[in-house]
Amino acid sequence: MQVFIAPQRKQWSVITARPAFDASQLFPSVAAVFQAVEEHGDAALLDYTEQFDQVRLSQLRINTSALEEAVSEVPEKLKTALVTASQNIRTFHDANRPRTAAPLEVQPGVRCWVENRAIERVGLYIPGGSAPLFSTVLMLALPAQLAGCREIVLCTPPDANGEVPPAIRYAAQQAGVTQVFALGGMQAIAAMALGTESVPRVDKIFGPGNAYVTAAKQYAQLRGVAIDLPAGPSELLVLADAQVPPAFVAADLLSQAEHGPDSQVIAVVPDSSLIDPLFEAVETQLKTLPRKNIAQEALAASCIVCLPDAQDRLDFINAYAPEHLILATQNANELVPGIVNAGSVFLGNYSPESAGDYASGTNHTLPTNGFARAYSGVSVADFQRQLTFQEITADGLQDLGPLVEVMAREEQLEAHRQAVSIRLQSLKK
Amino acid sequence: MQVFIAPQRKQWSVITARPAFDASQLFPSVAAVFQAVEEHGDAALLDYTEQFDQVRLSQLRINTSALEEAVSEVPEKLKTALVTASQNIRTFHDANRPRTAAPLEVQPGVRCWVENRAIERVGLYIPGGSAPLFSTVLMLALPAQLAGCREIVLCTPPDANGEVPPAIRYAAQQAGVTQVFALGGMQAIAAMALGTESVPRVDKIFGPGNAYVTAAKQYAQLRGVAIDLPAGPSELLVLADAQVPPAFVAADLLSQAEHGPDSQVIAVVPDSSLIDPLFEAVETQLKTLPRKNIAQEALAASCIVCLPDAQDRLDFINAYAPEHLILATQNANELVPGIVNAGSVFLGNYSPESAGDYASGTNHTLPTNGFARAYSGVSVADFQRQLTFQEITADGLQDLGPLVEVMAREEQLEAHRQAVSIRLQSLKK
Repeated sequence: MQVFIAPQRKQWSVITARPAFDASQLFPSVAAVFQAVEEHGDAALLDYTEQFDQVRLSQLRINTSALEEAVSEVPEKLKTALVTASQNIRTFHDANRPRTAAPLEVQPGVRCWVENRAIERVGLYIPGGSAPLFSTVLMLALPAQLAGCREIVLCTPPDANGEVPPAIRYAAQQAGVTQVFALGGMQAIAAMALGTESVPRVDKIFGPGNAYVTAAKQYAQLRGVAIDLPAGPSELLVLADAQVPPAFVAADLLSQAEHGPDSQVIAVVPDSSLIDPLFEAVETQLKTLPRKNIAQEALAASCIVCLPDAQDRLDFINAYAPEHLILATQNANELVPGIVNAGSVFLGNYSPESAGDYASGTNHTLPTNGFARAYSGVSVADFQRQLTFQEITADGLQDLGPLVEVMAREEQLEAHRQAVSIRLQSLKK
Repeated sequence: MQVFIAPQRKQWSVITARPAFDASQLFPSVAAVFQAVEEHGDAALLDYTEQFDQVRLSQLRINTSALEEAVSEVPEKLKTALVTASQNIRTFHDANRPRTAAPLEVQPGVRCWVENRAIERVGLYIPGGSAPLFSTVLMLALPAQLAGCREIVLCTPPDANGEVPPAIRYAAQQAGVTQVFALGGMQAIAAMALGTESVPRVDKIFGPGNAYVTAAKQYAQLRGVAIDLPAGPSELLVLADAQVPPAFVAADLLSQAEHGPDSQVIAVVPDSSLIDPLFEAVETQLKTLPRKNIAQEALAASCIVCLPDAQDRLDFINAYAPEHLILATQNANELVPGIVNAGSVFLGNYSPESAGDYASGTNHTLPTNGFARAYSGVSVADFQRQLTFQEITADGLQDLGPLVEVMAREEQLEAHRQAVSIRLQSLKK
């Protein structure tokens, strides 16, 4: 970890810079996959699965019976944990679903309102890897279910035996997923974007993935399929003062660093005397981690920043716009109004990021890479749209219409004006 | 206009297909502009303006005095109309701003909540053309102002004299725009995405534009700048029955058709006897329009669809997912719950689309091209983000922590588990 003591503001942009990655460089590979899937449908998907996942499947869709069997294949302890986590996620997301105001008489005879509608068909991508990411199943499917999506399609790569891990199947069942496919990578995104004989075309694709999956989602977006968020490596900023045990901060930094070699972690402290104890705690804990090498690589590109001025610390946080922000300070609550750019924020000494990653109830699909400046984490709102409605009475149009006529004429849109004038004329008779 | 009488469902996808356009074909041109703007800043912008707008400017930014002078340059009638339209847009958007729920104790000692934050810097693009589109200034800047955005930057191409039309300057001032630039096209998008000496870099870019502007916005999005909506040609579907005068429906269809030769209009009727009167009304009104040629071209690619079955009509509307939908029918209100895919909906005989385009209070920046299946029109929410917060007490973590430990271990993320375990251990002492 690099150390910056009271860096000048002009240095900040260098410290807060993310590793550059342009997913569009992968568009040629992605385009080839999309074209093959468009032309050959399931056959192309089965071929790609053989090529990338080293398994030849006879079908992509996981049968209902295999989904139901998961209940007996998942350890009881994990099932209990998943049930409680699901309850918390449901409770929080339900409480924060978009609410519409009552219809409003904007002016007499001009009634306008908003109604929420679920996106009809959504696709969730769950990456493979060393362990099944069942927590992401909950984080994406539960809000989709609360939103009322009609079709919730889940794609995840098959394991070496061609199977989808029990924990994924169990979580999918618990969270209302309607169809599960043993299908990963670019080909999964192409299938959900285009539709094939077995995989339905969806309206919006959610979920994390590697650079190829990210590029495929961006490519799908250019072709008119919505996506949740632009992706980037996961990241954490911890603001720590003297009252938090350095071991807690070190554990949080390492929990982020173990995600991947490109993960970013930053610790911000008010006093340089806090740096050495933090370093030592990181070194001590690092030794015990199974994913030590990954964490080490991530830490090499990470830093501790000492900023003695309180306003500087706040401004630095907002300049970085972290995906995850831990405020492990005495006055955490007082800082909240000043936090403008962040994905999810954890207050105090007993709110580790991993609580939010799994079970506190907030979502863990969050804007990385500085995208927190313009994007929010996933919520029920992302699975719905807000349609606007307006109903104008004849009297209402007699008041409002002349204004529309003036503006349409000034914009030289005569037919726009006519649509009002013809109605106003009919009312004069 | 083509006519389809009771088309089979398998035909619908052909009828509802949009003209294909792949903006990414223009990426090479866009990339060149972005590179020049990145390297040469304002100098590149002034050169491009000379090249594309045939005017050599000495500066891009419109002075405060020029903004203030607009008040004396805009006709009184238009000012009055703009003030009332602004009031309606403000009232409606304010009533429908995202509201957050109170902090929630998800389980004892686990408190989670959401807070809204405005996006700090937003960029609004207003296209040039035959007439100044001041209405779009209101539709984008007023929600930005209500959201609380700190910087609201507006770019619009200069006219032949190098000036920004008075109506745009006046609307910008009324609606809280903080800086106006005489700058259009791809170079305006590049400037707001990258920042130059005079144009600030923004976090999100809004607004309509031609194919080049659309491609530039998509390109900016790939580089990490958020955008409002994927763009496409404007469109309208009118559902009409026997009780609405055909002249009203014809006027609405033409108001959409005059937007551009690629605009799409569709009329859906329950009875084939309604087709001929509608045709005649369109022909009659078309003759009188200044933008007759544009409308005629748009109508050539448009259609009237006769569907005798009520459920078919509803399903057809949702399959098309129109940007604008007029329900000019006896039972318009009864149809509302069944409308799932649409941008903005107009009910009854006296709610022409042009009322919503200008003054009813709803937004006119809406999802076209079938994007209404996954996107909403612009609202205050698009200028804000929702940050999640969580504060867990020591007691709360003692309840929640063991579940997190189980799940982290199952996902083989040992450092995630440690961040909880180390805290739980400290509490045992």
